[in-house]
Amino acid sequence: MNKNWCVVESGYDVNNHYKNETIFAVSNGFIGSRATFEEGYDGDMDKTIEGNFINGFYESEVIKYGEKGYGFPDVSQTMLNVPNAKGFEIYINHERCNIFTGNITDYKRVLDLKRGLVTRSYIWSKNALSVYVEIEKFASMTHKNKLALRLKVKPITPCEVKVISFIESKVQNDTPRTNARIDYGPYEPVLLEVKRNRLEMIHRTKHTGFDLITHLHHSLEGEYFEEDDRIGEIFYGHEITLDKVISYHASTDEDLSKLNRKDFSYDELKQAHLSYYQDFWNHADVSIEGDDDLQIGMRFNMFHLLQATGRDGKTSVGAKGLTGEGYEGHAFWDTEMYALPFFLYTKPEIAKSLLEFRYHTLDQARDRAKVMAVDGALYPWRTINGEEASPYFPAGTAQYHINADIAFAVWRYFEVTGDMDFMKIMGTEILVETARFWFSYGDYIDTKDGKFCINGVTGPDEYTAIVNNNFYTNSLAKENLINACKSLDLLAEEERTLLQNKLDISESEPSKWLHAADNMYIGYNKEKGLYPQDDAFFDKAKWDIENTPKEKFPLLDNYHPLMIYNKQVSKQADIVLAIFLLEEKFDLETIKKHYDYYEAVTVHESSLSFCIHSILASHIGYHDQAYDYFMKSARLDLDDVHNNTHAGIHMANLAGTWMCIVNGFGGMKIKQGNLHLDPVLPEKWDAYAFTMSFKGTTFKVTVKDQVSFEYLEGPGLDVHLYGKKVRIEC
Amino acid sequence: MNKNWCVVESGYDVNNHYKNETIFAVSNGFIGSRATFEEGYDGDMDKTIEGNFINGFYESEVIKYGEKGYGFPDVSQTMLNVPNAKGFEIYINHERCNIFTGNITDYKRVLDLKRGLVTRSYIWSKNALSVYVEIEKFASMTHKNKLALRLKVKPITPCEVKVISFIESKVQNDTPRTNARIDYGPYEPVLLEVKRNRLEMIHRTKHTGFDLITHLHHSLEGEYFEEDDRIGEIFYGHEITLDKVISYHASTDEDLSKLNRKDFSYDELKQAHLSYYQDFWNHADVSIEGDDDLQIGMRFNMFHLLQATGRDGKTSVGAKGLTGEGYEGHAFWDTEMYALPFFLYTKPEIAKSLLEFRYHTLDQARDRAKVMAVDGALYPWRTINGEEASPYFPAGTAQYHINADIAFAVWRYFEVTGDMDFMKIMGTEILVETARFWFSYGDYIDTKDGKFCINGVTGPDEYTAIVNNNFYTNSLAKENLINACKSLDLLAEEERTLLQNKLDISESEPSKWLHAADNMYIGYNKEKGLYPQDDAFFDKAKWDIENTPKEKFPLLDNYHPLMIYNKQVSKQADIVLAIFLLEEKFDLETIKKHYDYYEAVTVHESSLSFCIHSILASHIGYHDQAYDYFMKSARLDLDDVHNNTHAGIHMANLAGTWMCIVNGFGGMKIKQGNLHLDPVLPEKWDAYAFTMSFKGTTFKVTVKDQVSFEYLEGPGLDVHLYGKKVRIEC
Repeated sequence: MNKNWCVVESGYDVNNHYKNETIFAVSNGFIGSRATFEEGYDGDMDKTIEGNFINGFYESEVIKYGEKGYGFPDVSQTMLNVPNAKGFEIYINHERCNIFTGNITDYKRVLDLKRGLVTRSYIWSKNALSVYVEIEKFASMTHKNKLALRLKVKPITPCEVKVISFIESKVQNDTPRTNARIDYGPYEPVLLEVKRNRLEMIHRTKHTGFDLITHLHHSLEGEYFEEDDRIGEIFYGHEITLDKVISYHASTDEDLSKLNRKDFSYDELKQAHLSYYQDFWNHADVSIEGDDDLQIGMRFNMFHLLQATGRDGKTSVGAKGLTGEGYEGHAFWDTEMYALPFFLYTKPEIAKSLLEFRYHTLDQARDRAKVMAVDGALYPWRTINGEEASPYFPAGTAQYHINADIAFAVWRYFEVTGDMDFMKIMGTEILVETARFWFSYGDYIDTKDGKFCINGVTGPDEYTAIVNNNFYTNSLAKENLINACKSLDLLAEEERTLLQNKLDISESEPSKWLHAADNMYIGYNKEKGLYPQDDAFFDKAKWDIENTPKEKFPLLDNYHPLMIYNKQVSKQADIVLAIFLLEEKFDLETIKKHYDYYEAVTVHESSLSFCIHSILASHIGYHDQAYDYFMKSARLDLDDVHNNTHAGIHMANLAGTWMCIVNGFGGMKIKQGNLHLDPVLPEKWDAYAFTMSFKGTTFKVTVKDQVSFEYLEGPGLDVHLYGKKVRIEC
Repeated sequence: MNKNWCVVESGYDVNNHYKNETIFAVSNGFIGSRATFEEGYDGDMDKTIEGNFINGFYESEVIKYGEKGYGFPDVSQTMLNVPNAKGFEIYINHERCNIFTGNITDYKRVLDLKRGLVTRSYIWSKNALSVYVEIEKFASMTHKNKLALRLKVKPITPCEVKVISFIESKVQNDTPRTNARIDYGPYEPVLLEVKRNRLEMIHRTKHTGFDLITHLHHSLEGEYFEEDDRIGEIFYGHEITLDKVISYHASTDEDLSKLNRKDFSYDELKQAHLSYYQDFWNHADVSIEGDDDLQIGMRFNMFHLLQATGRDGKTSVGAKGLTGEGYEGHAFWDTEMYALPFFLYTKPEIAKSLLEFRYHTLDQARDRAKVMAVDGALYPWRTINGEEASPYFPAGTAQYHINADIAFAVWRYFEVTGDMDFMKIMGTEILVETARFWFSYGDYIDTKDGKFCINGVTGPDEYTAIVNNNFYTNSLAKENLINACKSLDLLAEEERTLLQNKLDISESEPSKWLHAADNMYIGYNKEKGLYPQDDAFFDKAKWDIENTPKEKFPLLDNYHPLMIYNKQVSKQADIVLAIFLLEEKFDLETIKKHYDYYEAVTVHESSLSFCIHSILASHIGYHDQAYDYFMKSARLDLDDVHNNTHAGIHMANLAGTWMCIVNGFGGMKIKQGNLHLDPVLPEKWDAYAFTMSFKGTTFKVTVKDQVSFEYLEGPGLDVHLYGKKVRIEC
């Protein structure tokens, strides 16, 4: 076991159980399974939450509003707890064996990040009996429908072993416990059929009517049994090693009538899975010398980010990945602005699949635009299926910047990969439809010198809602409008004509977008020498952060939204994020000035905030602040800093820590399509290194006393190191 | 029957039934009873809504939010449908008699506005049988617990008559039918006890735990019966005249253990009731010569306004009075800004009782201020019991102007009545606590020249939500701050000291209010020569009212709120209302300019809008517009202009039409505490007259070729007629 690659739980403490069910959860972008105890949990029921999820598989209920308005989403989308097939019951001479029934020694749980495996083992003793129990588990990265477990029960003193392995049908969502503000009620799939001949259950969801097949394959032959809520097999022996491979197949993902039920052995799956991880780390590893806790934190973050993310083009990545019910499994802008950059420079095919999800849900976004009485497409603020599921519009629908975020990600994807095929078929269509939204939504306003204004929006900062001309929104909408034109220009004559016909784009339409972009209103306060976050931001009194009692944070849980909205206080990076994204447009003085002002009015009550501040602080030369913000971000889940890791990992933050290293300390920027690196070495470290790809070339950057590059694969690349061109090639 | 005093339904048409249940409803500010058919309704059940209400008697349920925020109201308040004791069953030779079971001739229903009585009669014939049926009804204006009915069944051909008179226990609210956006579920009181010995039922509400006694007293002796959901008496005869007096007693109103069950005869009650109305009309009548429809419309409006309004200081007046479930029976600012002025000049003791309700709920307003983390008191936007019940804060809690509205009404009440006793005990305390709210809520803002700004509010215009420095709000808040100081100054040394101690007012506190008032920010756009409705109003594009398809109105039902908020479009008078209220501060040119601009961007999708525009149009000299807006307002309920009168009358609009006459055409204004009148005679009328009181003097103003005054009672008064002082006295 390599200590820099393993998260280890040595000895069981019930108080960590909640959190560790998230930390040790395994998933593969399709299946997610919390690290509940497979052999049964007899401990404090308030310290455990069962959770087995399928990305894209959800249930809906009518959303009740205090007062419903036109265009409010009618139904919820809630990632559903699916039948649990992980379960074992272990009996030693008829005594139930789990960690609550006997004397436990040598308890150990290891999450091996390098190999993507979780292993839990202990010695159970009771009445002079003693056995060694071990469960190894992974969600296959190469076979997305498969969750695989290997149970070993090895007697230390001679005994009879009986193992029951089963699918448990009676599950329900637990959201009320994890989020007291929302009571979504129980979501239960309905059992359609039990297929005894092949250890299989078929369920249908009550409202959405989706089908799910849960299939179980054992490496041993057992005795079939069937009870109220479960089916399974019973195994007897003096020592048992039992592999079980669980397959989930969902009608949201494939045509179940055409299902090919090929079984794979545990070892076959494991072999492929290990290869996948080997390749992943070859393309993505970040090493830090001089701080082992940080090293493990970074790798933990990348591991969880990878396993959280849908890779099939039909699904996205939820704010909590597939590790908990928080945010109902919804995907937000976190996907494009946080997760996607990580994949773009490490596994670009995953970045692409995330954008494909947006392309495949473009029709839902077009429908939403119609409801909102605007042209083009309007992507949902939160969603599983592509439809808007946000029931609170001031911090939901009003965050139109989601459109510009997706457009930004499309263009950045193209800049980094040069993938014209994607642009031809999908990218340009997304850019055009989102640009149309902005053009139709905004207005030329005479009191603003006839400039193009975007009113009535909420920017990234959810503590300042429904404002006019949010700097972030206007800046990114401008990029959206420009890049829609650019992407049309990229196309060959014939392709362009085809797309113009398909989308009914007139010859003059793109020039209108450009005109709006050229005339985009960007407010500026001369006296302060600052861009205001929005038209009225400086017209509000500052929230007295210093004199607010500690227990009154987070503000949203302790103050009415109106009382927060009417003050200068930012939940998270807003203008600071815009500056990071468009950094080449600003000089250092401007960056510094804005960072100074806005950092002081920001309370970082979103896990999306620390990392952005760390990056800009690093670029400005505020090295201590950069490091402090990085540290707040780096082990947020591992150390359960926000005391809510039990509800699921903080996906965007995981990605943010990677950005802290690569964009922040590494100083990685794209300027005019070229890759720039300006690394600094944090004082407390001896060295750090990261592997990344750009335009098909993969290389490792090591920052020590000096910066060195190691070419790994691809055609070769020019990198601007501290402004000087360096060639990386074979 | 005087045609100018009676609303008549000649002949039954089921299509009018819905609406007429509201039109012919009787109430007395405490009991309200829709004009459902007492003898049973066998018609289209989608054309009838039962409704018997007690002002202040409500049920609560947990409000479900799509996403609940801190400080959102936890529970609803819904005016409850109480047990129905109006019911009769009439049998003629064992045949059920109602208007659906026989041949009906001579059907007539009359609402006698002068006397406050509703009479319905018809001749019922079947199988050569024929009887005359008549039911007269009123809700006693002098005995608020009493609803009285007199049933006459007179055979035209000889027959046996049997009448069952009963209390029906099984009732529930019908809100889902009347307001599809809100499903509040059934509200049912729980039956506690049936008191046979005195025809009485006692109910307790499920959640609020309020008790209600429903008591029945008959003029004849009948045969007691009891069934599942009802108790009552059966009467036999060849001809029956049966009086029934229903008493409702609620624990929200009185201590039921100390109830004095004195019965009054129908005639006793009727006599007192008629006297009350005689007195009312002597103080309040408006006559219009030259348009009978308008004449009846005006009196209908005043009648319904009177009977809608709580007069006990413990209750207010709901937006729909006591005639329907619309708005759940909630009272809004409509009370102070619309209903109260009418009473102030006609029955000032009712104006006082409405303010007493606010005084008695000051503690709830203080609690709400605490929840909102501000000082003083914050009155609820919508309420029955004094607590905030608005589940949609952008057009609810954000309408802080409710505080200034109440304060305005307090001060106006004092100006018109000179009632120092009220100011000593109640008025000043309200003014102080509301002023404290503004001082604590607002901020001195450097980007606004250090002026006192009130950010993050919604003004009267609900189509422009959560804005900064709403002109109406800031203007009225300024008055609030000033009048709080003035009212403290009114008090004698000792009283002032007492109040300062009670409310912990430091010597310097009032000067802070004055400083804020003196420095209140009032935006002004020099280029346009206009006050903006709020800081950003002119920075938005105008809604294209002209090119919006007809079926897309009202906008709120056809566009997402965000799409409305981001455009220049007013639901209703906002700045125009502020100018009307503070008219002496503005010159005619300014008034005209603002009226012209804002009228053009207003869609009048609130029934509170027409009248205000009519009044200002009149003052400007836009006589056609003044008359048009008046006409849209005058018969709104009688003609069911909005097709929703079935859900209850439009209380504020009723009052608004009175203001159109007296403030608009009559040109009545208060300037520096003096009464001014500048009447104009609308072209289409021969004459009009209104009776009003000011500082204890009651007089009648007749506007014909010239204006004449008739002194009626009181100490005498100087009136400024067209600017010239005229003495009105005995």
